[in-house]
Amino acid sequence: MDASIRLFAAQGFERTTVSEICTQAGISKGAFFHHFPTKQDVFLQVLDNWLATLDVQLKTLITSSKSVSDGLVQMAALTREIFNQSNGQLGMFLEFWDQSRHDPEVWKVTVAPYRKYTQLFASYLRRGIEEGSIEPVDPEVAARMIVSMAVGFLLQNLMDPQATDWENTVVNSMNLLLNGLKRRTT
Amino acid sequence: MDASIRLFAAQGFERTTVSEICTQAGISKGAFFHHFPTKQDVFLQVLDNWLATLDVQLKTLITSSKSVSDGLVQMAALTREIFNQSNGQLGMFLEFWDQSRHDPEVWKVTVAPYRKYTQLFASYLRRGIEEGSIEPVDPEVAARMIVSMAVGFLLQNLMDPQATDWENTVVNSMNLLLNGLKRRTT
Repeated sequence: MDASIRLFAAQGFERTTVSEICTQAGISKGAFFHHFPTKQDVFLQVLDNWLATLDVQLKTLITSSKSVSDGLVQMAALTREIFNQSNGQLGMFLEFWDQSRHDPEVWKVTVAPYRKYTQLFASYLRRGIEEGSIEPVDPEVAARMIVSMAVGFLLQNLMDPQATDWENTVVNSMNLLLNGLKRRTT
Repeated sequence: MDASIRLFAAQGFERTTVSEICTQAGISKGAFFHHFPTKQDVFLQVLDNWLATLDVQLKTLITSSKSVSDGLVQMAALTREIFNQSNGQLGMFLEFWDQSRHDPEVWKVTVAPYRKYTQLFASYLRRGIEEGSIEPVDPEVAARMIVSMAVGFLLQNLMDPQATDWENTVVNSMNLLLNGLKRRTT
């Protein structure tokens, strides 16, 4: 898996061959195909693992947060970890998006998490509205906005890491957004 | 140019040959190379044209807007046009991002507009703070947030057009964001 991630991120999914993955990983083709019927299967497994980690982190925050507005700030701080951990891995994002335009199977798996996280944020915001920490906004719109921000920041951090301190920008942006979302105590 | 956009968007930059472009466009290779020394030159020209149109639209809005907060809502409405006009063209985004990871020349040209638009929004927000329609937030953070949102929405509209009414979502999101940015009249 590690060898695949390195190669996919560096030279792209298309250009990477199973032979290269096997050489990098020091395994035989037999061993490779024993675990993964196709190169696409490794690709999808990489995405699955990555999302599984993210799921655990998000769910921990959601269940442990004192209030929804607090939880959202902590989630923004999570991006620090995401930006760091995923050094080489972030390049995979573009690969997934690019592949999914040509491959309906990859498309299904790539699009699913965006839909899932939108629903997760929407229901989290609904909880915030109910508990009174969030203004009665449209939770779906706010959720799509948060997901879009995350995607946009991830991509810019990947493309232009030197442009700014992206981690602080994400945290400050979430605070800015919360200026509009947080329940005014008037 | 039209033929190139169609082919790049449908099958990717790498997979598209100059011969295919010439066949689609009904021109000779001689004619092609007379205008574009390389395939990459068409690619970069596509980006340039697209950005030139966007520049005109943004600058018109900036100079004609009554207040900065009004202008920002009108800019969000601009995405309606962008989402529509760029049907096939939007696929090019992913191509640019993907190519720029392997090609420093494409990288420079792809990253430049993000930097430029961030500066443009930052100085527009600064004007809003001065005129009193925008809260005294950090203009750079708010600008990066707007650009990130735009990138994230563009990408999701491209990847999952059926998921929601993206145009309305963008406009509603901008209104939500402005809840936090707009100067409170207290």
